[in-house]
Amino acid sequence: MVNSRLQDQKKLKNAVILKNFAQIREILAKTHQADIADVLKSLNRLKDKKVLIEQLEAEKVALVLNELESEEISQLLSMLPDLKVTEVFEHMPYDDAADFLGELPESEQEKYLDLFDISSAEDLQELLSYKDDTAGGIMTTEFIAIPYNISVDKAIKALRENAVNAETVYYVYVINLKNQLMGVISLRELIIASQDLMVSEVMKRNIISVNVNDDQEEVAKVVARYDFLAVPVVDDKNHLLGIITVDDVIDVIHEEAEEDIYKMAGVSGLEDDINAKLTSTLSSRLPWLFVTLLGGFISGNVLSAFSNQLDKMVVLTFFIPLLAGMGGNVGTQSSTVTVRGIATGFINKETVRKTITRELMIGVLIGGIMGSMVAILAYFWQYNMKLGIVVGLSMMANIFTAATMGTLVPLFFKRVGIDPAVASAPFITTAIDVLGLIIYSTLASILLFVI
Amino acid sequence: MVNSRLQDQKKLKNAVILKNFAQIREILAKTHQADIADVLKSLNRLKDKKVLIEQLEAEKVALVLNELESEEISQLLSMLPDLKVTEVFEHMPYDDAADFLGELPESEQEKYLDLFDISSAEDLQELLSYKDDTAGGIMTTEFIAIPYNISVDKAIKALRENAVNAETVYYVYVINLKNQLMGVISLRELIIASQDLMVSEVMKRNIISVNVNDDQEEVAKVVARYDFLAVPVVDDKNHLLGIITVDDVIDVIHEEAEEDIYKMAGVSGLEDDINAKLTSTLSSRLPWLFVTLLGGFISGNVLSAFSNQLDKMVVLTFFIPLLAGMGGNVGTQSSTVTVRGIATGFINKETVRKTITRELMIGVLIGGIMGSMVAILAYFWQYNMKLGIVVGLSMMANIFTAATMGTLVPLFFKRVGIDPAVASAPFITTAIDVLGLIIYSTLASILLFVI
Repeated sequence: MVNSRLQDQKKLKNAVILKNFAQIREILAKTHQADIADVLKSLNRLKDKKVLIEQLEAEKVALVLNELESEEISQLLSMLPDLKVTEVFEHMPYDDAADFLGELPESEQEKYLDLFDISSAEDLQELLSYKDDTAGGIMTTEFIAIPYNISVDKAIKALRENAVNAETVYYVYVINLKNQLMGVISLRELIIASQDLMVSEVMKRNIISVNVNDDQEEVAKVVARYDFLAVPVVDDKNHLLGIITVDDVIDVIHEEAEEDIYKMAGVSGLEDDINAKLTSTLSSRLPWLFVTLLGGFISGNVLSAFSNQLDKMVVLTFFIPLLAGMGGNVGTQSSTVTVRGIATGFINKETVRKTITRELMIGVLIGGIMGSMVAILAYFWQYNMKLGIVVGLSMMANIFTAATMGTLVPLFFKRVGIDPAVASAPFITTAIDVLGLIIYSTLASILLFVI
Repeated sequence: MVNSRLQDQKKLKNAVILKNFAQIREILAKTHQADIADVLKSLNRLKDKKVLIEQLEAEKVALVLNELESEEISQLLSMLPDLKVTEVFEHMPYDDAADFLGELPESEQEKYLDLFDISSAEDLQELLSYKDDTAGGIMTTEFIAIPYNISVDKAIKALRENAVNAETVYYVYVINLKNQLMGVISLRELIIASQDLMVSEVMKRNIISVNVNDDQEEVAKVVARYDFLAVPVVDDKNHLLGIITVDDVIDVIHEEAEEDIYKMAGVSGLEDDINAKLTSTLSSRLPWLFVTLLGGFISGNVLSAFSNQLDKMVVLTFFIPLLAGMGGNVGTQSSTVTVRGIATGFINKETVRKTITRELMIGVLIGGIMGSMVAILAYFWQYNMKLGIVVGLSMMANIFTAATMGTLVPLFFKRVGIDPAVASAPFITTAIDVLGLIIYSTLASILLFVI
């Protein structure tokens, strides 16, 4: 199936370039909006894009635009006559329209808002007033709500008449006269129920909702936990304001996972686009490299204080990359497990002690295994027993420190309100580098030169 | 809302411990299965778990078990009489039942399969025959399919009678007499359609399906891309075998993102449970640390070949941690962006060249900035111009190498069929360490001692 879709995309692209209108329309009729959007993106010439978009009905244009970024949407809309733009907006889900308008400068926003009728424009302006990464920022106001005091039969009739305007009718929300959320009933349950019962008799009353100001990550957790297709959004007084559908939640899950991965690698997370400007990429990556630079000079100073001993015994130098590399990698392992444990809720108040004990034990075990191996290998490399002991003990202490810091630093960050994902970035490896060298030089000074 | 749910969980726990049956039933009636499962997990004593599970109806037990791991399910089922176990299985979605049974030893599997009627047992055994991480492994056989040649009115009546057994009826699949997939219609469209049209007249024909052997990650991409609530699963001859619902896809997305994050940190990805055995944690983490160990000794050998120069000029040692740390972090940044780009499909055949050019340019820029800064700082630290030049040039070359390897190694791995996420693990930082030291010692030997 996937291959035939790719073929259709290629055929469509060729038909557009050759201006074969009959074929364009034929392929468009059976092609999903996500695939049409891909073809649009792959067309290099503006006039080709225009050929394609002009062959689409307004309703399909709206669906295709949902798949694109704001800049691309602006560009495409500017190719269409105002009348068609209005028609496109009529078919665009409010949440997507608000996402698009939200990224435009205010003067352009006004221009587009003027194309809507007054009540839609008001709805849109309300959506625009919520922060991007909150429930309000990702909800849509297009849902179906019915009063509690009508019959199932009447409710189904009302649905038949209004369903066209709602993004999803899989859940029907039940409200009182003040527009407060009272219950929910799935379309399926409504159809199975006896037609003459009242809605309030068949609805589910224990309804789980999210607050309009909740963080989008919290919303995603609720939807994933309870396997919802949509979740209602209410204000502090339980007035029903909108719904968030599962497809938008999937986008949030992707977005948040990517953000965390980038942060853990010391990329600020702004960067998810190879089309982004080089300067913004640099400003996303350089800060952590300056931390590394600072750490590197501190490490250099530690070694400088240790230079007499290094001078006398150059072989001590050979183990510096090994110690630093091992500390960094053990630290990254521990911090990754801890950071993800916090993010997924697996590490919580009840399990935090167990986690710490466990990671420290792992630190002791890995330290023991690696320390003894390194001691033996170092001995057989340089035939110096004391050196083997120094390197082995340093490795043990270094690994234990790395595991401890990798576990405690993210937990500490979480406690004081810093995003724990940051702890896994260069910050922690750099800190471990410095500590590891202090341990090594101290142990070497004492065991090799004092005793 | 979240707080009141937490309070209910606490109340439920107390009621169970105090054996206050009236209160238990009262809270259970309004509590979601995911929350009940959490309370069950938090109860320490087996007899308390038994008190709680006995107060649940079989249907609710089935829902609660879906939220638990296989071991916990086995334990709970063993507390119930056989008759109730049968009843529980009758209410359990087939895909969840198969997931549970799949993790049991064969003898126990047989025992449970005997509790099902023959046709259910056959369905289950079919599901059990698919690999865990394929479409077949996560699909359910409980879907609604109707023949193409009946009227909409008849179809709705059929749904009213059969809807109870399906995990989702939001999509109704349309098949021919050979059970081949012909089309799909959403429940919503079916209700809005004229009652006397034929199903084949209102169904959508261009249906996107997945093959039963497709990888679960591919399935997740299809569902996310097309915003589906469920996707049909077919065999090579287009026979409809099952469906995969969006809630299971969300689980896959979580699972795959976690797996990649762990792999990138050099944790094999087995580990997602602080209750796992210590030995399995060690066997997940140690392999990458042995790579680090090997790399550390290779680095040591590079330094050993360079020991004459180090001996003459101990100050060269001070910059080793700085060079290694910077190379490692630049490499991690590039490899993370590349690995995620491949995973999300952002880097594909068409964009791969642009990605490589871009990352190499970033390597040049960052190398230039950091190299000059380090050269200046090194000069003012040690008042040695030649040393500043050596350290600065090494830093530039080191950063450029790191960015190049961080970009090319994951792409190469992808090409030869190795999971690119592995490239971001200790493997790449270790390789960069070794290369960086070779560059540094070579440049230092030539510029400081030869010229």
